[in-house]
Amino acid sequence: MIHPTPIKERIILGIDPGTQVMGYGVIKVLGNKPSMEAMGIMALNKYEDHYIRLAKIYSRVISLLEEYLPDEMAIEAPFYGKNVQSMLKLGRAQGVAMAAAIARDVPIFEYAPLKIKMSITGNGRAAKEQVAYMLQKILHIPNENMLSQLDATDGLAAAMCHYYQSLEVQSHGPKYKSWKDFAERNQTKVR
Amino acid sequence: MIHPTPIKERIILGIDPGTQVMGYGVIKVLGNKPSMEAMGIMALNKYEDHYIRLAKIYSRVISLLEEYLPDEMAIEAPFYGKNVQSMLKLGRAQGVAMAAAIARDVPIFEYAPLKIKMSITGNGRAAKEQVAYMLQKILHIPNENMLSQLDATDGLAAAMCHYYQSLEVQSHGPKYKSWKDFAERNQTKVR
Repeated sequence: MIHPTPIKERIILGIDPGTQVMGYGVIKVLGNKPSMEAMGIMALNKYEDHYIRLAKIYSRVISLLEEYLPDEMAIEAPFYGKNVQSMLKLGRAQGVAMAAAIARDVPIFEYAPLKIKMSITGNGRAAKEQVAYMLQKILHIPNENMLSQLDATDGLAAAMCHYYQSLEVQSHGPKYKSWKDFAERNQTKVR
Repeated sequence: MIHPTPIKERIILGIDPGTQVMGYGVIKVLGNKPSMEAMGIMALNKYEDHYIRLAKIYSRVISLLEEYLPDEMAIEAPFYGKNVQSMLKLGRAQGVAMAAAIARDVPIFEYAPLKIKMSITGNGRAAKEQVAYMLQKILHIPNENMLSQLDATDGLAAAMCHYYQSLEVQSHGPKYKSWKDFAERNQTKVR
C-alpha cells in the first residue's frame, strides 16, 4: 500500500483596515496552489462614531478568524500619511485589527502597499485595477466579482503577498507558530 | 426596620497607553467618595519588537478588566504628536487597548492630556509632579507610592478626570451602559 504524503493546507487572511472601508481576503494554499476562499469589504463611513468603526473592525476580524481559522494574518500597513491626525486614526484601526489576531493567537505579518503591489504585479506603483487583474488571473476569480469589489482586492493582495514572501524565506529567517512561540523565541531580544 | 439606600459602587479604570510605558490606575467610587484601588506601570521599552509591545498592552488591559471589572474605561489620548510615524505607533497602542475594552463590552471615554491636567489641578499645563501631588491629597495615597510611580499617575489621573466629568454631565448628555447599548442608541446616526 502506498501512503501518499498528505498535502498541507494553509489558510491566510489578508486585511486592509482603513478608517473608511475595510477590505479582506482569504486564500487557501493546497501544496503550492493558492485559491481564493473569500473576499469582501465592510463599509465604515456610514458610521459617524469613531468607536463604532473600531468596534466593527474588531468584531469583523474576530468573525473572519473564527470562520476561516487562518494560520497567519497579513495586513496592509501604510507607514506614511498626510497628517498626524489621519495617522492616529489609521493606527487605531490597525491596532484593533491586530488585537483581534493577538486575542486568537494568530501571528501577524505586515506589508507596505508598495511591497504588496510589487509582489503581485512586479511594479510597486501599479494601479488598483492592475493588481485586481493579476489576482483574477492567478486565483481564477470570476470577472464580475472583481469589478464590484476593488477595495476587497487590497486584503486579498496582502494575503497573496504574504504567501509569496513566505516562499522566499521558507528555508531561512525566523518563523513563528503563534504569539507565544514568537515571544518565547525572542527572549534574547529582551534586554 | 430601616432599610438604608444601598450605596452604589462604581469602578473606573484609567490607562495611558504609550509605546514606551503604559500607566494605569483603578479608582472605586462609593457614593461620592473616590478611592484608589490600584495603580501601576508596565515597561514596554525592554521589548524590541513592536508586536510584543502591542500584545503586552492588550493582555494587561484584559487582565485589569477581568480583575477589577470596571464599569468604564478612561484613556489618555493625545491628538497631536511630533511626526506621523510616532502617531501611527501611538494609534496602534491606543487601538489594542481599546480593543480589549470592546472585547469585554466596557465603554471607553477618552480625554486629552490638557483636559486631564485641568480637571485634576485646575491648570492644563501643570507639571506631572503637580498632578501626582493633587491625586495624592484627594485619594490619600501614601507618599512613597507616588514618587516611585510618576508614570502610573497618568492612568490614575485619566480615571479621576472621567469621574469629575461624569459628575458634570450626570443629568444631561448621553450615557451608555455598554458597547451594545451605545450602538443601539446611535442607530439614528447610521445613515
